[in-house]
Amino acid sequence: MSHVTDNTPLPAERNPAAGQAPKKGLPPGSAVYTGTMADEPVLLTLFDYGPEQLVEHSGLSAEQCIAFKDTPTVTWIDIDGLHDTHLVREICRAFRVHPLAMEDALNPTTRPKVEDYESQLFVTVKMARPGKDSEDIAEVEQVSCVLGPQYVISFQERPGDLFDSLRTRLRNQAGRIRDRGPDYLLHALLDAVVDGYYLVIERFEDELEELETEALDPDAEDIPQRVHSLRLQLLEFRRLVWPLREAIGELLRREGGQIRKETVPFLRDLYDHVLQVLDVIDSERDRLASVVEMHLAMTSHQMNEVMRVLTVVSSLFIPLTFFTGLYGMNFTNMPELQWRFGYYALLGLMGLITIGMLGWFRRMKWL
Amino acid sequence: MSHVTDNTPLPAERNPAAGQAPKKGLPPGSAVYTGTMADEPVLLTLFDYGPEQLVEHSGLSAEQCIAFKDTPTVTWIDIDGLHDTHLVREICRAFRVHPLAMEDALNPTTRPKVEDYESQLFVTVKMARPGKDSEDIAEVEQVSCVLGPQYVISFQERPGDLFDSLRTRLRNQAGRIRDRGPDYLLHALLDAVVDGYYLVIERFEDELEELETEALDPDAEDIPQRVHSLRLQLLEFRRLVWPLREAIGELLRREGGQIRKETVPFLRDLYDHVLQVLDVIDSERDRLASVVEMHLAMTSHQMNEVMRVLTVVSSLFIPLTFFTGLYGMNFTNMPELQWRFGYYALLGLMGLITIGMLGWFRRMKWL
Amino acid sequence: MSHVTDNTPLPAERNPAAGQAPKKGLPPGSAVYTGTMADEPVLLTLFDYGPEQLVEHSGLSAEQCIAFKDTPTVTWIDIDGLHDTHLVREICRAFRVHPLAMEDALNPTTRPKVEDYESQLFVTVKMARPGKDSEDIAEVEQVSCVLGPQYVISFQERPGDLFDSLRTRLRNQAGRIRDRGPDYLLHALLDAVVDGYYLVIERFEDELEELETEALDPDAEDIPQRVHSLRLQLLEFRRLVWPLREAIGELLRREGGQIRKETVPFLRDLYDHVLQVLDVIDSERDRLASVVEMHLAMTSHQMNEVMRVLTVVSSLFIPLTFFTGLYGMNFTNMPELQWRFGYYALLGLMGLITIGMLGWFRRMKWL
Amino acid sequence: MSHVTDNTPLPAERNPAAGQAPKKGLPPGSAVYTGTMADEPVLLTLFDYGPEQLVEHSGLSAEQCIAFKDTPTVTWIDIDGLHDTHLVREICRAFRVHPLAMEDALNPTTRPKVEDYESQLFVTVKMARPGKDSEDIAEVEQVSCVLGPQYVISFQERPGDLFDSLRTRLRNQAGRIRDRGPDYLLHALLDAVVDGYYLVIERFEDELEELETEALDPDAEDIPQRVHSLRLQLLEFRRLVWPLREAIGELLRREGGQIRKETVPFLRDLYDHVLQVLDVIDSERDRLASVVEMHLAMTSHQMNEVMRVLTVVSSLFIPLTFFTGLYGMNFTNMPELQWRFGYYALLGLMGLITIGMLGWFRRMKWL
Amino acid sequence: MSHVTDNTPLPAERNPAAGQAPKKGLPPGSAVYTGTMADEPVLLTLFDYGPEQLVEHSGLSAEQCIAFKDTPTVTWIDIDGLHDTHLVREICRAFRVHPLAMEDALNPTTRPKVEDYESQLFVTVKMARPGKDSEDIAEVEQVSCVLGPQYVISFQERPGDLFDSLRTRLRNQAGRIRDRGPDYLLHALLDAVVDGYYLVIERFEDELEELETEALDPDAEDIPQRVHSLRLQLLEFRRLVWPLREAIGELLRREGGQIRKETVPFLRDLYDHVLQVLDVIDSERDRLASVVEMHLAMTSHQMNEVMRVLTVVSSLFIPLTFFTGLYGMNFTNMPELQWRFGYYALLGLMGLITIGMLGWFRRMKWL
Repeated sequence: MSHVTDNTPLPAERNPAAGQAPKKGLPPGSAVYTGTMADEPVLLTLFDYGPEQLVEHSGLSAEQCIAFKDTPTVTWIDIDGLHDTHLVREICRAFRVHPLAMEDALNPTTRPKVEDYESQLFVTVKMARPGKDSEDIAEVEQVSCVLGPQYVISFQERPGDLFDSLRTRLRNQAGRIRDRGPDYLLHALLDAVVDGYYLVIERFEDELEELETEALDPDAEDIPQRVHSLRLQLLEFRRLVWPLREAIGELLRREGGQIRKETVPFLRDLYDHVLQVLDVIDSERDRLASVVEMHLAMTSHQMNEVMRVLTVVSSLFIPLTFFTGLYGMNFTNMPELQWRFGYYALLGLMGLITIGMLGWFRRMKWL
Repeated sequence: MSHVTDNTPLPAERNPAAGQAPKKGLPPGSAVYTGTMADEPVLLTLFDYGPEQLVEHSGLSAEQCIAFKDTPTVTWIDIDGLHDTHLVREICRAFRVHPLAMEDALNPTTRPKVEDYESQLFVTVKMARPGKDSEDIAEVEQVSCVLGPQYVISFQERPGDLFDSLRTRLRNQAGRIRDRGPDYLLHALLDAVVDGYYLVIERFEDELEELETEALDPDAEDIPQRVHSLRLQLLEFRRLVWPLREAIGELLRREGGQIRKETVPFLRDLYDHVLQVLDVIDSERDRLASVVEMHLAMTSHQMNEVMRVLTVVSSLFIPLTFFTGLYGMNFTNMPELQWRFGYYALLGLMGLITIGMLGWFRRMKWL
Repeated sequence: MSHVTDNTPLPAERNPAAGQAPKKGLPPGSAVYTGTMADEPVLLTLFDYGPEQLVEHSGLSAEQCIAFKDTPTVTWIDIDGLHDTHLVREICRAFRVHPLAMEDALNPTTRPKVEDYESQLFVTVKMARPGKDSEDIAEVEQVSCVLGPQYVISFQERPGDLFDSLRTRLRNQAGRIRDRGPDYLLHALLDAVVDGYYLVIERFEDELEELETEALDPDAEDIPQRVHSLRLQLLEFRRLVWPLREAIGELLRREGGQIRKETVPFLRDLYDHVLQVLDVIDSERDRLASVVEMHLAMTSHQMNEVMRVLTVVSSLFIPLTFFTGLYGMNFTNMPELQWRFGYYALLGLMGLITIGMLGWFRRMKWL
Repeated sequence: MSHVTDNTPLPAERNPAAGQAPKKGLPPGSAVYTGTMADEPVLLTLFDYGPEQLVEHSGLSAEQCIAFKDTPTVTWIDIDGLHDTHLVREICRAFRVHPLAMEDALNPTTRPKVEDYESQLFVTVKMARPGKDSEDIAEVEQVSCVLGPQYVISFQERPGDLFDSLRTRLRNQAGRIRDRGPDYLLHALLDAVVDGYYLVIERFEDELEELETEALDPDAEDIPQRVHSLRLQLLEFRRLVWPLREAIGELLRREGGQIRKETVPFLRDLYDHVLQVLDVIDSERDRLASVVEMHLAMTSHQMNEVMRVLTVVSSLFIPLTFFTGLYGMNFTNMPELQWRFGYYALLGLMGLITIGMLGWFRRMKWL
Repeated sequence: MSHVTDNTPLPAERNPAAGQAPKKGLPPGSAVYTGTMADEPVLLTLFDYGPEQLVEHSGLSAEQCIAFKDTPTVTWIDIDGLHDTHLVREICRAFRVHPLAMEDALNPTTRPKVEDYESQLFVTVKMARPGKDSEDIAEVEQVSCVLGPQYVISFQERPGDLFDSLRTRLRNQAGRIRDRGPDYLLHALLDAVVDGYYLVIERFEDELEELETEALDPDAEDIPQRVHSLRLQLLEFRRLVWPLREAIGELLRREGGQIRKETVPFLRDLYDHVLQVLDVIDSERDRLASVVEMHLAMTSHQMNEVMRVLTVVSSLFIPLTFFTGLYGMNFTNMPELQWRFGYYALLGLMGLITIGMLGWFRRMKWL
């Protein structure tokens, strides 16, 4: 059963739910890519910008990127695909990324967190996009960022992300984004990630509303499985978002350090959004529990009704059938059988019994 | 399914439950109204007062409002309707409202909170009024306030609010309200909002009592849905009120800053009221869970009773019917049939069986 | 449905469960009595005492009370009934009680709390006494106290309280109570209130034990309602006691201020008692949940047994009846009917079937 | 229903579950014994020891004990039985025990706690031993200790305790216990109490395993009651142990004061043991809940099976019986009856119906 | 029933679930081995290494080990098997291990924790490996470590551990592990333990997925037991892991003391992994609860379906059978019997009834 999964080609090899540690046996800090994306080329994109200028490069080699390291302008290096470990390691070494940070960036099962390595901040989060069907509501990908004095390096597992509108804003200098520092760029990246969470939540909401409607039908046989599957995916999604709250709180505590004072209100706003996402997830879990309860109550009501019909029919006809059996016996000496109006008398008696029974059923409110 | 909703004309476009982010892709801080109230005119009302004087204006233009900015008296500008972004932006710029605050005021899905922007406090809360029917117990509207040195600006989505009695008190100088500062005015606005919560809670209470009575009837078929609907609305209402607790706590920590010492006891009182509202919501949730449990137990009892009737009737007559069938057989050699009192003997036997069965049922306490 | 209620004549007018705000629209701090006790006279009782002397007055007027304000001895003014707002207000003004405190004392839905108004401490608690029947386990009344430098003023809604033994101790100088200050008197009042909680808890305990016994009978049809009613009352009682914990903690933090060092161990003891009451309430809630579970399991067991009887009887006789029907048919060509021992052969066959069935039922452990 | 009870002769008079306050009306600090052990003599035992010497006395009078108060050696006075209030009071007065501590020692419903009365520490805990049957898993007795500069006084309700091995260690100077101070003696007493908890927990564990085995039988009719009874006892046991955690934490905070630095690792160890006991209690509660769930699932499975048998038998034979009834009718004009092979044709038809039904049942996996 | 157990030969003698205290009666700090591994020889392994050299010894005697105590290089002494108390005690005495630490190392039921004994840190954790079958998902063994200035002593109950890859790294100087201090060695040991948890979690995950698939079959009779067993094992595993979180937090607070600054990021990483393990355990518990719910819903659905078949068949044929009984009676005066088309008329009537019934069943959605 695969839920909020990374849509990697070989899901069997790594299972985020199992928190698998594929590097077991290697020393901590070994930069080996442990995900499963080895078949596509790694793509390096670079933005170097200030209020007045913007340089954008795509498909650069590692050396070319390193040249931008000491420019006074803000540099954003985006690495799409992590399987070319050599390239990643080269860049990391040039930018003096701590080996543990590099390891975390390359390991797609890292828990979202913020780590402080002297001159650099290392941030890992999970990017989530709405998936294709109800078995795969969210497509998850890990995004790690290194925030240095004048640069941000972002690591993604796969090409394709939620940062296109951010790129457009950089190009258009929308909201004067190019006036601000690399910490604001980090915020903008996180903001795009959290915006993606809202879209996933809407998908959950849609699934939930569909379930709510169908759960009213006590015969909908697959409700239990679907609730179970949705709950697992919700659980997993919550596990992705929950640590982000802590991580942004950690960032806020860096005020005055790597995070400038002007960026703090934006991060507080982001913190608020994460709280809101968590609020909604929690209320969706409650809602799911309530759906199950409602469905069981519907089922139980229907069972009651079915039983009542059975009981009414059986209780009406079984006694009557007894009487017909009684006078269907072949004893030679059964005087009633010879009575002229015996048959009619019996019909009358059975009519009375029926009326009495119906009255009693009505009094019991079974009819 | 629509619950504790804003009664906006196009609910499909925004869903507070989904925590939709309709501004996705715009830079944070962009003042674009993301609600759905574009068809009514925006109304500006202004109160400017001191202990001795009161100036009240309605339907002012933005420029006219701005004239009151630097008066030594307290100024309250109330903006009803947010879709005229131009007007809102003009006022915000004149009063130097932070772009993020302006954005939050215009976005009707902001989480209740207090933000500190140097010289100003920005407060967002949800105003709730009892709705029209059991599908719509609370009508929710966002109210944001900016507290400056000598003014309060309040932003509402729609005309019509809970502030009428506050306006009357201002006009009548009731409780010497005009002697106090703008922080007390902020308190008075929040107090009116919390008073509205009590009314909503009473609506929930009424629904709950009705449900409690009806849940005693095990046949009431719509109990599960109604419980589900009430629970969703309660969940959503709780999500509106919960952050307010934190927000008022935040205000209390501003004592000595934007909040004067004399206003603190009033805010503490308000804090207490919010706690009480949350207490009641929580006990209503427990009560709802208890209603479900009670209803299920009633259903299960009834099922038991129905089954017992079926079992008693069947167990009584099925054996008797067997005997009638036995002597209804057409074997040529069945000596009992020729016995003179065979019929009466069988009637006697069946009578004994019946009495035995009834005795056993009574011993099992099924009768 | 009325639960842990104040036994006021007009319960419809105020509902503590709904947390009704009957003063909506009045400015905060307006001293208007919002309870419903307008038909009995307000009674003022005054104790003025020191180690050596004790003055006790009953039925005083407000002015007479005020005369004791500045005596060096400890003064306890007890106001029984709050509807004579004029009198209450006069005393409050003379003793300079803060308007918000006066408002809280007059509003019977105030949450238990401690408020610090410069020279005075204001304490509100709920006094609970065992009620008359299982629908009304606790009678609740609000008691507020103002602790000043040398006096305590207590406000009660109704005559009749739990303070009689305290009065006796004052008269007899039992435990040298008259040697101590007004803070100890406040403690003694709260202690009497908490002692009342123990009595209420015992009533709950009694109800619970009765329920536990009756829940063993799966046919006891009113168990669900009674559990529901008891749970609501327990919920409400918990809501009364819970904030007291915080309130006494608040008092303890006043050590060195209005609360003398010698009184602190007594307050710590009281704090402990409140914790114990809350412990018991919580375990009673768990116990109640366990009762429901046990009752449902009993019901389910009985259903199982009923179904088994039905199944055994039906499965035994329905096949036999089929055979009797078979040989009751009127086909002209049915050779078995002419067989000499056909009837006896069939009886034998039916006997074998019966024995086989019984054996199988026994193997299934249904008999 | 009596659970984890003190095995006092008159359980009706005091009920720890109800948190009864038998002293209601007396001033706080009144030393009146409120338990029920008035028929046995109070026993005083005294140990006075140092590294080199050990004095042990039994059956001393109060005066004789007091003589040891100011010796430089460690003195342990153990009071078994509290109903001789005069004697207890005499000792307490001689050792200057605070009236509230004396009251708590004499009241067997005191919550476990640590209180600091200037020169003395007062500790109350509950001693628990495995009881005799499944209705009485733990026998509880209150033990209070007063830790003074060079002495420990312990108060027990009844003779018989868990301290015998401690006495042996004192006599044998095992673990060099006599080299250490009175704070270590206090630790040793608490350690013996916590060791007793482990034994009680093992009793619970045994009961639980027995229940787990029996719950697999869906017909075990008393499972619900037994689970209920075990749960109540577990709840009550947890209420005894839970406050001890806090109390030992309180002791640890006295490091450097009444608790010497060398004793702290031992207390930390004890703290750990209490945590472990609480861990186990909590997992036993979860386990109990799981047992109930498992039992209900078993019951529900059996019901399903019973219903299936009924349905299969009824559905097979009721249609066949209809056909036999059909051709048992006495219409003069029923051509089939005259057919030569009518009877055999019908038998064939019925055989086909039966085979069809069985096939369908098999497809539905009901057989 | 044996769950996440230590696979010791005599499980009856010690039961970690019962938190048994087999040393009851001995003074705290007595070094007596309380596990059950007395039949295999104790194995001492020693690594003494620096950046440039590595000495490895196996099967050393205690005296030989002690010789390495004061070398400037890092020394790791690994003791496999604790029953040779004499040997263990000798080493502990030579390395001045605190008696309580020695006791904890020898007692296999110690709760995971960190204790600070002046110059040494003492750490106890539980090592878990995947077990052999679904009744024994995790094999647990206690590992204790003493971290001194230049050495680490590790105590294990049994030969065989998860440290082989660590030994290989030491031999190969992989990750430059030999350049670091003994605190890093401690980290490496803990890291290997936590890596083992991931493997156990995967085993749980596998069991869970199997259960999820089988729970869809409402007839799978052993689902309740298997869920119960899995839940107990999960509970117990959680109890092992939970205190580790706290313990590593404790280690982190030793930064600058026994833990060097360079080791802190590695420990933070480890802390993160423990959090992740706990996250997964919690979501597995939720998942298990969801499986039960789903299975019950499936069972309930099937019951509904079975009941419906019974009701449909009975309700169809019982009335028809009544009619056949009616005209099977032997009254002399039953005119219908003589009608020429009486039989056909009745067949027609019964056909109409059948059609009516089927229509009604279809309208009720029972067919």
